Amino acid sequence: MSAYLITGISGFVAGHYLEYLAKNKPGARIFGIDERPSDFSFLEEGYRKGIKLYSFSLMDVPSVEALLEEAKPDYIVHLASYSSVASSWQNPALCFVNNTNIFLNIAESVRKLAAKSRILSVGSSEEYGIVRKEDTPLKEDAKLDPASPYAVARVSQELLSEVYARGYNTHIVRTRSFNHIGPRQRENFAVSGFARQIIEAKRGRRQEITCGDIGITRDFIDVRDVVRAYDLLLEKGESGQVYNVCSGKGYTLSRILEMLQEEAGIGFPVQKDPLLMRPVDNPFIVGSLEKLNKAVSFEPEYGIKDSLRSVLDYWEKAL
Amino acid sequence: MSAYLITGISGFVAGHYLEYLAKNKPGARIFGIDERPSDFSFLEEGYRKGIKLYSFSLMDVPSVEALLEEAKPDYIVHLASYSSVASSWQNPALCFVNNTNIFLNIAESVRKLAAKSRILSVGSSEEYGIVRKEDTPLKEDAKLDPASPYAVARVSQELLSEVYARGYNTHIVRTRSFNHIGPRQRENFAVSGFARQIIEAKRGRRQEITCGDIGITRDFIDVRDVVRAYDLLLEKGESGQVYNVCSGKGYTLSRILEMLQEEAGIGFPVQKDPLLMRPVDNPFIVGSLEKLNKAVSFEPEYGIKDSLRSVLDYWEKAL
Repeated sequence: MSAYLITGISGFVAGHYLEYLAKNKPGARIFGIDERPSDFSFLEEGYRKGIKLYSFSLMDVPSVEALLEEAKPDYIVHLASYSSVASSWQNPALCFVNNTNIFLNIAESVRKLAAKSRILSVGSSEEYGIVRKEDTPLKEDAKLDPASPYAVARVSQELLSEVYARGYNTHIVRTRSFNHIGPRQRENFAVSGFARQIIEAKRGRRQEITCGDIGITRDFIDVRDVVRAYDLLLEKGESGQVYNVCSGKGYTLSRILEMLQEEAGIGFPVQKDPLLMRPVDNPFIVGSLEKLNKAVSFEPEYGIKDSLRSVLDYWEKAL
Repeated sequence: MSAYLITGISGFVAGHYLEYLAKNKPGARIFGIDERPSDFSFLEEGYRKGIKLYSFSLMDVPSVEALLEEAKPDYIVHLASYSSVASSWQNPALCFVNNTNIFLNIAESVRKLAAKSRILSVGSSEEYGIVRKEDTPLKEDAKLDPASPYAVARVSQELLSEVYARGYNTHIVRTRSFNHIGPRQRENFAVSGFARQIIEAKRGRRQEITCGDIGITRDFIDVRDVVRAYDLLLEKGESGQVYNVCSGKGYTLSRILEMLQEEAGIGFPVQKDPLLMRPVDNPFIVGSLEKLNKAVSFEPEYGIKDSLRSVLDYWEKAL
């Protein structure tokens, strides 16, 4: 059976990837790396026990190499990332090292060991920078104009991926992933935070919903569709190519907030919190799904309402 | 008087920068970093003794910060670099760290200490990648398409520079510097190597000149013009902007080889060495000088024949 090495295995996306593998590739061997503790309580106990977990920094090259030699992964799902745009402004160097350099260490170790692993290099819609509405939906050949340290780190990772794929024939498929939504996402992400507040309000624990700028439009894709797209790309994506992972549809945050309240069957006053407003933010981002669809016949299975329902259900149980 | 911190001070470009400063800003205080030994025998002894030299890796952030606090440089001329395209393919990770990460450490230290230093971030014409002749002379808004680990490292440095300049108001002027020529350049660079061979042949030590692909066209600029452009950019360049540093003129290597033999007043058979051919090389690179010229009224002072004469003179004395 095939072997997966998943970096950042304790994270939100990795948890859904594990659920996907448990269901669709139950015999796959799983190796995971994370420096954070993991909570896999959403996985069946037997499955959970089969996951081999390692705790070390991806800056520790000898440990990366040793694990690659032990695991001999067919697939490397590189999800470890310093992924907050806001924090990247606080600590740009840390963000760069913990995105670009950790990726470089993995790609270089695979090259040095002449491993046959296929690598998934995850990028971000942030790489496009501030875009004009008339240039959306964004295709992969749109100009990259990274406007934050996080976005620069992602573009650098992408450029390195291309050189490894072209220059050394390392098998690397790249993504530019758009906004994720889904159960278990932390509440500092807008949609999950709104859903949590709605459940809290419903239970009488708060009187209003606070939010930042809800006029912005984003392309939300359910995390369960994201991990399915990632696995399809690892299997069938073309090495060296880059693919948007998105829904192709844009919603304003204010419309999301309305839909969440409709789903919850309840309405609350909405209060803007100036502390949640960002100094510079992209008013409108929507991606084109066309290239991904052509390459691996991918269509999202979760509509926006399915996703919002799942997020509300999650907070109903979690709170 | 103003203070300069020069990284990579033992290198070819730094040596010429020091000669420029000795002549044009004799009172400037000079701090230099390099892990290699330096040979400043071309400088007057008194001047040489005034240079404060430090030897540590630019990956050593506490040492970088301590030196910034001691030197309080008005100008940081960041010339330290892992600058060989060929070697970058042998050791891509080392190249990336010793270009992009060392730059990041400097920029981040300047930001953290809120230093008022102006930084010169040196990039390369390699960032443009393989270009079509009809797209030359290359302007700064041309697409970047880095095709080697070295070029990727340079583009990443440039993107970081832009974020620091825009996001933190760190004063950083960026360049894309084209092929340098001039005395004291090592013989593994084409023009210097040709000149050395011609002098050797003139003295009867060899019968022929060996070369790689001499059909390629390059934009050569004399290193003495390069350092003058750098100093003008540090003084008057706009932070966050990127400037080609080039002559605006293209010569094939075969024409250069002819001119060198004309200057030397002697001719030898030319033999192609397959080992000197590169698997992929850009056939034609010429830059546009327009933006640099407008910004700081720069025009090269050394014509191609002046440069070739100087390189021949250097080998006449050195051999």
